[in-house]
Amino acid sequence: MEPLTERTPRVVSSVKLHRTADRKKTGEFLAEGANAVGSALDGGHVSELFYTADAGARAMALVDRALKSGLRASLVNDKAARALGDTVTPPGLVAVCRQIDVPLSQVLGAKPRLLAVPIDIADPGNAGTVVRVADAVGADGVVFAGNTVDPHNGKCVRASAGSLFHIPIARERSIDSVLDSLTDIRLFATAADGEVDLDDADELLDGPTAWLFGNEAHGLPSSVLARADHRIRIPIQGRAESLNLATAAAICLYASSRAQRRGKSIS
Amino acid sequence: MEPLTERTPRVVSSVKLHRTADRKKTGEFLAEGANAVGSALDGGHVSELFYTADAGARAMALVDRALKSGLRASLVNDKAARALGDTVTPPGLVAVCRQIDVPLSQVLGAKPRLLAVPIDIADPGNAGTVVRVADAVGADGVVFAGNTVDPHNGKCVRASAGSLFHIPIARERSIDSVLDSLTDIRLFATAADGEVDLDDADELLDGPTAWLFGNEAHGLPSSVLARADHRIRIPIQGRAESLNLATAAAICLYASSRAQRRGKSIS
Repeated sequence: MEPLTERTPRVVSSVKLHRTADRKKTGEFLAEGANAVGSALDGGHVSELFYTADAGARAMALVDRALKSGLRASLVNDKAARALGDTVTPPGLVAVCRQIDVPLSQVLGAKPRLLAVPIDIADPGNAGTVVRVADAVGADGVVFAGNTVDPHNGKCVRASAGSLFHIPIARERSIDSVLDSLTDIRLFATAADGEVDLDDADELLDGPTAWLFGNEAHGLPSSVLARADHRIRIPIQGRAESLNLATAAAICLYASSRAQRRGKSIS
Repeated sequence: MEPLTERTPRVVSSVKLHRTADRKKTGEFLAEGANAVGSALDGGHVSELFYTADAGARAMALVDRALKSGLRASLVNDKAARALGDTVTPPGLVAVCRQIDVPLSQVLGAKPRLLAVPIDIADPGNAGTVVRVADAVGADGVVFAGNTVDPHNGKCVRASAGSLFHIPIARERSIDSVLDSLTDIRLFATAADGEVDLDDADELLDGPTAWLFGNEAHGLPSSVLARADHRIRIPIQGRAESLNLATAAAICLYASSRAQRRGKSIS
């Protein structure tokens, strides 16, 4: 079997999925590497698979699974793999996937107990890391609100380490719509000058909670801070001005997850 | 005054500090942007400053401070600023700094109550984020052990957001030497299958603690795990396999910092 090349039309059109506009047009995106491709297959999100001879040998089970599910899985040459890949040393295993975001109503209909709500988040690495943390602490979903990076961006997919396929993700451009929909759940905003110290927040954290995380440079808009039930500050002890978005989100989401487990084990 | 160009010998030799080998040879490194340069000036680490006309207008106070301290501060053209910068859109303000690491004995001589010890860490972004988190939670230092990335790497400096200049940093290639030196302090290793759940670790965490964090891909070597007083697992609730290094470190370091504050307020 001759491998497809970087000039094969299907490869060419898949490579275009690196661009936001083409992802929007087609409703598809790329996920690379055994970890992400395995999670995408688990979730039934894959529409097509490309692999190099080397990668196919290493990930034979995944290629087999794709073929047995009736998916098209095609051998590609190294040049095609580099074009399809998003990294300097591409893994040579790339899935074309259907986009994973679901309507906000679906996330909220499941009566979530813990949500991450990044607002106006700009960096795809941060976006993916928040999704990974949310998955790890057992959150029920991530709602990207406002003018955020596309969670199907290659760097976000990579940073999520498969978690993008594990938990429900919603996108909603209107921040007000998101906040209006978040009823029956406490809204906690992270803020450097919040009135509640996270050290003292355990009693507040054991109920259903949505954490609002702001933009990397500007934080949360004051209108959002005003609508939150509480504004929480992570106490800064040293001379750092702040934590970065992903580490702050990790600390807050773990604190909630732990408080909810304790609440359950007591009641 | 004519701006220096990308061909001015001092600019040329400073640009070389992007390379590990040249940093090693000269004992200098680059820090860019108002935040990092300000922290470097605070710590007395700057040996020379370069700025573009635009950046100089925005950060006039910093340039003045450098000049008043008797430092050489030179106007450079945009091409020189791009060469000195480490990012796609360089801030146009770059300090040549003396390297900040101190001997391990100095970090340990200060009787630290909380240390971060990344071992064999490979990614400069993770390294810088760990330094930033350690600073934010009030840790007493960061000890880079084993075969780690150079903390003076440009991405590390940027990710640390100035914190590299705030807390003592040591580097020691021999992991055994580091572990041998860490007496009078509990060694906690992060491990996916650790015998202690972080949820239940509060009582263990209120004493002097050094957190050992492992390589991004391989975690900690079994010899290190065996030498730790406790192996701690962050409970994973969802389908994520793990957390990334920086978010795991944030959760552990914040947990220690909080437990130590509580211990103090009770005693």
